[in-house]
Amino acid sequence: MNSPDRMQHQRVLRISCPDRPGIVHAVTGVLAGAGANITESQQFGNADSEHFFLRLQFSGGPSSEDLARALRQVEAEFGMDVALDTVGRPVRTIIMVSKAGHCLNDLLYRQGAGQLPIEVAAVVGNHPDLAPLAEFYGVDFVHVPVTEGTKAEAERRITGLVESLNVELVVLARYMQILSPELCRRLHGRVINIHHSFLPSFKGAKPYHQAHARGVKLIGATAHYVTPDLDEGPIIEQDVARVTHQFRTSDLVSLGQEIEARTLSHAVRWHAEGRVLLDGDRTVVFR
Amino acid sequence: MNSPDRMQHQRVLRISCPDRPGIVHAVTGVLAGAGANITESQQFGNADSEHFFLRLQFSGGPSSEDLARALRQVEAEFGMDVALDTVGRPVRTIIMVSKAGHCLNDLLYRQGAGQLPIEVAAVVGNHPDLAPLAEFYGVDFVHVPVTEGTKAEAERRITGLVESLNVELVVLARYMQILSPELCRRLHGRVINIHHSFLPSFKGAKPYHQAHARGVKLIGATAHYVTPDLDEGPIIEQDVARVTHQFRTSDLVSLGQEIEARTLSHAVRWHAEGRVLLDGDRTVVFR
Amino acid sequence: MNSPDRMQHQRVLRISCPDRPGIVHAVTGVLAGAGANITESQQFGNADSEHFFLRLQFSGGPSSEDLARALRQVEAEFGMDVALDTVGRPVRTIIMVSKAGHCLNDLLYRQGAGQLPIEVAAVVGNHPDLAPLAEFYGVDFVHVPVTEGTKAEAERRITGLVESLNVELVVLARYMQILSPELCRRLHGRVINIHHSFLPSFKGAKPYHQAHARGVKLIGATAHYVTPDLDEGPIIEQDVARVTHQFRTSDLVSLGQEIEARTLSHAVRWHAEGRVLLDGDRTVVFR
Amino acid sequence: MNSPDRMQHQRVLRISCPDRPGIVHAVTGVLAGAGANITESQQFGNADSEHFFLRLQFSGGPSSEDLARALRQVEAEFGMDVALDTVGRPVRTIIMVSKAGHCLNDLLYRQGAGQLPIEVAAVVGNHPDLAPLAEFYGVDFVHVPVTEGTKAEAERRITGLVESLNVELVVLARYMQILSPELCRRLHGRVINIHHSFLPSFKGAKPYHQAHARGVKLIGATAHYVTPDLDEGPIIEQDVARVTHQFRTSDLVSLGQEIEARTLSHAVRWHAEGRVLLDGDRTVVFR
Repeated sequence: MNSPDRMQHQRVLRISCPDRPGIVHAVTGVLAGAGANITESQQFGNADSEHFFLRLQFSGGPSSEDLARALRQVEAEFGMDVALDTVGRPVRTIIMVSKAGHCLNDLLYRQGAGQLPIEVAAVVGNHPDLAPLAEFYGVDFVHVPVTEGTKAEAERRITGLVESLNVELVVLARYMQILSPELCRRLHGRVINIHHSFLPSFKGAKPYHQAHARGVKLIGATAHYVTPDLDEGPIIEQDVARVTHQFRTSDLVSLGQEIEARTLSHAVRWHAEGRVLLDGDRTVVFR
Repeated sequence: MNSPDRMQHQRVLRISCPDRPGIVHAVTGVLAGAGANITESQQFGNADSEHFFLRLQFSGGPSSEDLARALRQVEAEFGMDVALDTVGRPVRTIIMVSKAGHCLNDLLYRQGAGQLPIEVAAVVGNHPDLAPLAEFYGVDFVHVPVTEGTKAEAERRITGLVESLNVELVVLARYMQILSPELCRRLHGRVINIHHSFLPSFKGAKPYHQAHARGVKLIGATAHYVTPDLDEGPIIEQDVARVTHQFRTSDLVSLGQEIEARTLSHAVRWHAEGRVLLDGDRTVVFR
Repeated sequence: MNSPDRMQHQRVLRISCPDRPGIVHAVTGVLAGAGANITESQQFGNADSEHFFLRLQFSGGPSSEDLARALRQVEAEFGMDVALDTVGRPVRTIIMVSKAGHCLNDLLYRQGAGQLPIEVAAVVGNHPDLAPLAEFYGVDFVHVPVTEGTKAEAERRITGLVESLNVELVVLARYMQILSPELCRRLHGRVINIHHSFLPSFKGAKPYHQAHARGVKLIGATAHYVTPDLDEGPIIEQDVARVTHQFRTSDLVSLGQEIEARTLSHAVRWHAEGRVLLDGDRTVVFR
Repeated sequence: MNSPDRMQHQRVLRISCPDRPGIVHAVTGVLAGAGANITESQQFGNADSEHFFLRLQFSGGPSSEDLARALRQVEAEFGMDVALDTVGRPVRTIIMVSKAGHCLNDLLYRQGAGQLPIEVAAVVGNHPDLAPLAEFYGVDFVHVPVTEGTKAEAERRITGLVESLNVELVVLARYMQILSPELCRRLHGRVINIHHSFLPSFKGAKPYHQAHARGVKLIGATAHYVTPDLDEGPIIEQDVARVTHQFRTSDLVSLGQEIEARTLSHAVRWHAEGRVLLDGDRTVVFR
């Protein structure tokens, strides 16, 4: 949790490495020695994989270059992956959409309200329907139609946009196309999708139809990182809502959109705040 | 629950009266005799007040005038309040706002997506900030500033708008002004407010500050009909979300806005679908 | 919802039949003509299957025999399945268990507290561990061990108990054996199982291990009628709770038991109150 | 979260002190120097009060006496409150009850199932009704009747039991008597009560009646530390469940008992695991 005032002039340090004694002491020693004051700290040791995860926020201290240099020794000693960033720095993001606008609307509203530390470099749609919504928020809309024959060309355009716009995060906001395995691999850990079911229930197409046929009493949505295995990527967030026998499929869709929008926005926010760390097929979410 | 296709050519009949044997049989008899086919039916007998509530949806049958005439005898016999309407008919609505746009954004998005059977006659704001959002959705924005000296004049303008625009429902979407007791009484059962706490906790001003000070582990929002007793009107819907000691007041505000928006939109939808009946200080909600 | 005082001297009528105009009028006409006063009524028309479901509670009226006779004409006219019972009549129940006692403990406590209209004819366990708990509540415990060689014999004993004890409902309260397809068919709609996952996720064995491996952010439980297709029977109730990356499988088990116990108790209560009607592979639950 | 195997041979260190740079580094330095391996760590800095809270679990290291000695210097330097304990050590507990057994049943079941690290020294009741339940779990039941004239004598007996049984925690499991301000002060931070409403809504007597009258759409329960201000103590945990207009007061009571039992058991477990730290009128809960 970060209110804007706390986020000013703070930095976030994320570390993962094999678990062993002394990690926290070593890292906090570097920070204390550099005059930094830790304001938030979370850690997790996965006892199965014996891997350790740490997220620290701190104020004060030297420049990030100097701090990176100061961390180099412990980094080597413990075999750490280290990431250092400024708290609240907007993450360069592309949002990909098709025709349904509920997730896009929620993301853009929250970004505009200062509740989502992302900078939307572009909205990319395979249909033009959501161009006006993007424009209302002052965001470029890029129409990249996808047909069977143009799929490869479309992927090249998307890849080109990711590169030319320095994109760090791709959000699939009910984008109804499947990314190629190559693109999934290239953007590993940087593409978040919202699936309109409580995974692993109802993978694939038309999950609300499947949910209706099965007669479930709760429906849900799942935000996850995209991997080449469709609907199998590491889960970031899930949420559900109660339904009854009275709900027709169209009612499930309507209620479900509400769950999808908030689940995706939460996942994007936590990712952008550096709170989500990949732990194999799972995620560590430091809320 | 109503999917669009079910709502076409259907009507809704709402009845409340003192409870006694034979009501349902009498009403369904009139409908069956008129060739109407009931598609949805809910009823509730309040054992304390001995009052009975009924909501019926039906297809087929004669014109509403003829049906009203056919119902007249049972209406008199049982002392019924009867309301007959077309399912899905958009309810003429004014949305009143101040500066925060989260509830307005949610209402207008859902209305535009066909999920909210209202017709927004105007957005009225005591600040001009949300005019662009209203305009994006093609809705007139009326700026009615309120200062100590102009409060009476502002109420007259609001009352004038309600009358000139044939408004059936007024939604206070985080409108930060208190309506006068006279206006509350005049629009009894037709003004819905969203209060940013789980009532009756944290009535009055700055509920998130109160919630933070009290150290609650869940925060909530309450949609209710407005009465002259501030924050005491009949509750239509409430929802909550979990928080921890880490949440600062600004974090409660941010999460709370999400709860407020969906709670208000649900209440407005159920009201507009004729699912909310007043039962003294309480509501009957036929979902 | 039924408080004890309301349930005295009330009866419940459950009807299902092909949907067509006039059903409610016809049934309420018989009841009104017989001097019965309807106190609760719920109905549902499945638009896909065009099947209609009705549950009525009423006070007053003639004997159940006379009422059944009076209903015979509409029953034939509409092709109805009719069930008439006394509200609150304890349903003769067998609870089947293995070693884990959390569901049994919850069921027996609620039954003893007057919150569950069942009469526990026996607790049947394939292990003897839970005999003391059954005995504390004054319920017979029958030990029916199951090994590969004795499975058929065990099923015969269970069938024998169901018959000799006039059992109407069999509750599998974390019973770790699979009933034979024959027994499932014979007791269709009369056996409720609790599965320790949010079905259709994590069917089969060790669902909490599966949930941990998949990294889900919510875990759940599902109460459903048992059919020959394992974990595929009509769902009566589901519930979930939030988990994080910190939960080990044993933590999921511990939290999950809480969800299982309340989900199963709710399902058993609604079944015993005649609130659950089978609608093909789904259920109608009139809460 | 602690599975039994993780808890063996682990210790828990809890620290609170004025917030300033270097705390974590200093503490982890002592632990690392003593050969201890941190397995779980959580911290919180209250930015308003500028107070810092830390909870560490660790394996290995010297005896607790030696460790306490080793910590003495940082303890003095930072003005720390330090508490050191063995993970999983059963906390000596008295459970106080009146007639309703749902909370007692849940606590005793979980304790017996190894899910609650408490040792129940006695169940104390002002009515004898729950003696059999205590006896089934092998726990002494002490009947301490309370009438207007014997209230002071009853408090002396309770205080005597707390002392003679070396009681660390008193759980008011729907105990329908108010403790005197003196006893509240003497046992500050060591008495947990379950209030049958979502505080601060519906303080005082008959909260379900109040909830019914107000027409709320969710009911809840609150586990909190007891202070001389009735129902105003620091909140440990709250939970809610959805209700409708159909729920009578007796239905609210029945559903509410389920919420009360799990809310209290969660609070007791977190307290017994050393996860709850007092922060003025609030709590820090390291889950």
